[in-house]
Amino acid sequence: MAEIDRMLEANEDWAQRFPGSKPVAPARKVAVVACMDSRMPLFGLLGLDVGDAHVIRNAGGVITEDVIRSLTISQHLLGTREIVLVHHTECGLQSTDDVTFADVVEQATGRRPPWAARAFTDVDSDVRESMRLIQESPYLLSREVRGTVYDVGTGRLREVA
Amino acid sequence: MAEIDRMLEANEDWAQRFPGSKPVAPARKVAVVACMDSRMPLFGLLGLDVGDAHVIRNAGGVITEDVIRSLTISQHLLGTREIVLVHHTECGLQSTDDVTFADVVEQATGRRPPWAARAFTDVDSDVRESMRLIQESPYLLSREVRGTVYDVGTGRLREVA
Repeated sequence: MAEIDRMLEANEDWAQRFPGSKPVAPARKVAVVACMDSRMPLFGLLGLDVGDAHVIRNAGGVITEDVIRSLTISQHLLGTREIVLVHHTECGLQSTDDVTFADVVEQATGRRPPWAARAFTDVDSDVRESMRLIQESPYLLSREVRGTVYDVGTGRLREVA
Repeated sequence: MAEIDRMLEANEDWAQRFPGSKPVAPARKVAVVACMDSRMPLFGLLGLDVGDAHVIRNAGGVITEDVIRSLTISQHLLGTREIVLVHHTECGLQSTDDVTFADVVEQATGRRPPWAARAFTDVDSDVRESMRLIQESPYLLSREVRGTVYDVGTGRLREVA
């Protein structure tokens, strides 16, 4: 566990130049749902400041019950009303499928996961499917959602129609 | 939906000074699990570079089935071996409880969520509970996990023993 010590040390520099506290409710009333991919520093690539937006991330940036839970809290308790999805090119979930992944985990651990990896092939279709799942959720106050794909090779964000 | 247009515009600047692509597997072999809170730009406050670490975020930074799915993909497909948790002070989930939250959603939408908000009171206890849930997961290749609390008033990260 060397990585956490490196992070704690780097955080000292951050704390030294910390600009001060912000309110808990996101200033721009928006929640971002994105993939966990290591190549997406979302505050930087979306031009967000501290305090601007909720950021929800998982493998694939897919809409799960946990994402709906987070969005529901974001809207009902903390006032957000817009949702922006950020998927990306060259996703790890495009180079596997749910059965192969379950095989890999079972062979390595002796246990087969009861949940799907949520692998996908076409990123634009996956963004549209995520938008559909948000539109169908009965728990949200607003289903204003737009979807994008981030190109990890160029740094450019593209909206999905 | 003004926010996405503002993000697409800001992204133009990012793309102009984009330093180039990185491999899909995180360079520092670490996955961060954190709260969605808008006041935590994780790459900045942990000193992460593009390509360094997976970042998984939800309301509270709690360990759900979706987080275990994401960590399992992170370790089995993309080679991470360490996990760092980042909870924080003044969390929105500390100012409610699961029953009150379900009441709020039901009154506003007519539908009572079947899932819990995952509200909590003591942040250190919640970090320890998250570490315990990771230790218990049978699907991970490594359960090396350390937990921290980020102070949104000072910018300082503190490890939880």
